[in-house]
Amino acid sequence: MLNATHDPRLKSWVESANDGVTDFPIQNLPFASAKKSSDKGECSIVTAIGDQILPLAPIAALNVASTPLSQEALECCKEPEMNKLMALTPAHWSALRTDISRWLQVGSETQPALQSLLYSQNEAQFKRPCQIGDYTDFYASIHHATAVGRLFRPDNPLLPNYKWVPIGYHGRASSIDVSGQQFHRPKGQTKAPDATEPSFGPCKRLDYELEVGFFIGQNNELGEPLTMEEAEQRLFGLCLLNDWSARDIQAWEYQPLGPFLAKSFASTISPWVITAEALAPFRAPFVREQGEPEPMPHLDSEYNQQYGAIDMELTCSIEAADVPLTQLSQSNFKDAYWSVAQMITHHASNGCNLMAGDLMGSGTQSGPTPEQAGSLLELTQGGKKPIAFENGQQRTFLNDGDSIIMTGYCKREGYVRIGFGEVRSTILPAKP
Amino acid sequence: MLNATHDPRLKSWVESANDGVTDFPIQNLPFASAKKSSDKGECSIVTAIGDQILPLAPIAALNVASTPLSQEALECCKEPEMNKLMALTPAHWSALRTDISRWLQVGSETQPALQSLLYSQNEAQFKRPCQIGDYTDFYASIHHATAVGRLFRPDNPLLPNYKWVPIGYHGRASSIDVSGQQFHRPKGQTKAPDATEPSFGPCKRLDYELEVGFFIGQNNELGEPLTMEEAEQRLFGLCLLNDWSARDIQAWEYQPLGPFLAKSFASTISPWVITAEALAPFRAPFVREQGEPEPMPHLDSEYNQQYGAIDMELTCSIEAADVPLTQLSQSNFKDAYWSVAQMITHHASNGCNLMAGDLMGSGTQSGPTPEQAGSLLELTQGGKKPIAFENGQQRTFLNDGDSIIMTGYCKREGYVRIGFGEVRSTILPAKP
Repeated sequence: MLNATHDPRLKSWVESANDGVTDFPIQNLPFASAKKSSDKGECSIVTAIGDQILPLAPIAALNVASTPLSQEALECCKEPEMNKLMALTPAHWSALRTDISRWLQVGSETQPALQSLLYSQNEAQFKRPCQIGDYTDFYASIHHATAVGRLFRPDNPLLPNYKWVPIGYHGRASSIDVSGQQFHRPKGQTKAPDATEPSFGPCKRLDYELEVGFFIGQNNELGEPLTMEEAEQRLFGLCLLNDWSARDIQAWEYQPLGPFLAKSFASTISPWVITAEALAPFRAPFVREQGEPEPMPHLDSEYNQQYGAIDMELTCSIEAADVPLTQLSQSNFKDAYWSVAQMITHHASNGCNLMAGDLMGSGTQSGPTPEQAGSLLELTQGGKKPIAFENGQQRTFLNDGDSIIMTGYCKREGYVRIGFGEVRSTILPAKP
Repeated sequence: MLNATHDPRLKSWVESANDGVTDFPIQNLPFASAKKSSDKGECSIVTAIGDQILPLAPIAALNVASTPLSQEALECCKEPEMNKLMALTPAHWSALRTDISRWLQVGSETQPALQSLLYSQNEAQFKRPCQIGDYTDFYASIHHATAVGRLFRPDNPLLPNYKWVPIGYHGRASSIDVSGQQFHRPKGQTKAPDATEPSFGPCKRLDYELEVGFFIGQNNELGEPLTMEEAEQRLFGLCLLNDWSARDIQAWEYQPLGPFLAKSFASTISPWVITAEALAPFRAPFVREQGEPEPMPHLDSEYNQQYGAIDMELTCSIEAADVPLTQLSQSNFKDAYWSVAQMITHHASNGCNLMAGDLMGSGTQSGPTPEQAGSLLELTQGGKKPIAFENGQQRTFLNDGDSIIMTGYCKREGYVRIGFGEVRSTILPAKP
């Protein structure tokens, strides 16, 4: 899986890519759908290099692709969304990535042609990377499932299916937008424990969920399940995902069919999709602790045991008029109980057709310690213990005007750190 | 809501539309995406008249539309999917419908131009009427919710939220196909009550669900809820929906986040979308029984009380190698506990953006008596009481090779009966 694009010695002729702190060194090369804010016309597919953006569509005409696969992938970058690119094969994605890496390296003869195409990330306007046909949200952190379960069932926090089934549910695709999303506090039905009837009004327990999103590449026909090996080939890339949650609406509506309006008012993703190939150096062993049941055979593979996890640090911060930028949560995706390949394989195990551009969420990524909790529901123990900030302000759940900022990165000895950028979104007051 | 297109005296120059038994008299005029099987090229939007199909795309060039709205709607019929047509307004849909009615009436001067466009429904190949951005399935039959709840909780069948919240959940859009769908019996994880561990294999309790589907027209912005009046304007049309269910997979997976793989392997809809306008004569009072809580104000309106229900008969039949065509279920959509407008209004009440082409399911439509149950789960009391057919064969759940056929129609004194065609689908054996 490792190739020349991961070489830590690579430097780019775009200087900001070499500063050692950027999320976007030449070893990253993520994809997004963007345009220069001042440009009329549609977005197209771009990559990031340091603090700059390189649009890929114009390169298709330059005759610089080294292989037909790379050229085919480049042609797809003219589209406003990534679905066509995502529908190609890992060989296509890799061929294009190899070329982009070559074009952006110090000494590349392509530099003069590409230099004029660059624009600053500050000037960029992003949109959703693809048309998300279906959005599925999993529940892959056993720490989150246990902590949340404990609030409802102190004696029996984890349901019996958890360690066997990668629990997930279908989510709402239409209300997903990219970083910068501002949305009105949702209204909904809630019922106070002591009330005889529910009431309708603005959500009182608005929460974030710190998640990893992953995009599906290629299509399988309805009725064609996937092996664990095939599932790895279906992973196009990862993003950050804030799966906003209205806890009071959820508590009243979720039985027996699961969360519905508590989630569908907004979900926010980072604009950059970090490719599976870029993440290859940061794969980690996926091991069950002693005494845990082994995954069923169709959810297990030697590769998954050795490389199934992704060592990806996640942080979540708040910023508001009364609260300076303050970190709330920190966790690592490698602590998930289910791997990405297991979630994909499970999803297709009944023959469900997964389509290029489908988005899946990992579920809230909470780590083993209490401060690694990926939501306020957990951090405040269901709203009972407010979080106090240094300036004396506090929160149980979120206020109007609060912004939530999530970041993520991967690093490992001997490799260049790559980042995910950020996903930032802000809560507006409920509509009158 | 009633206009000249509903006049029972109207006859068409297409003779088969006047036979008194067709689902598609000139008072119906549904939409589908279809083409002649023998034609290469893509499907486009068509209407049905008697046993014939009239493609609408070629009419756009004939200069026969009587209004700009109608012409605009006609132009959208060139598309392979209905989404653009659905994104227009009720005034557009009505203008086109009025013109189609006029063109197809006895004595129309448009007859010579249209006659050559007709082809038989037997020659048609249908596809999904639109790109279904999101699919939501409700749970609007209190009879179904009570009967299913009783299987799990004999003392407390109906959960406390049921009479307040139109319960629903997000479903899987990619695996929805039109009548004729054949799918392999899904595999999945199940756990027998006496087993210590789950196992993976073909579903043993495969079931149908007799539902009404409804398509959303127009778009609302994220954050813009809908009133009950606006919700009525967002109803493009209705179809039949078989929401296939793997009961054993569902029982093991569904807590705490709801049904997932038990539903996502296949769902089948009828190809014809019967427009809201065509259904206007069959609207019925929507009344809660004595002692039931009144709907919350945002889910109530005078119009809904007078016309919120739709008097639509539903039937479900089985046909198999060992069972001749036999009716299993019969119910009526007017027995739903929640109206279509209430479901739409509730869905958008948190600001969720509903998009043209979204599909919603009513949930299994079971009536008040046991034989009106819309699923085998109910008819066989959870698989405990097999259904016996006249020839001695029986079923608890469905066998490989079984076909399920659903039909629906509306009739009322003084109006011409209109039908929904059928949705038929067949279970193939599980893949090895």
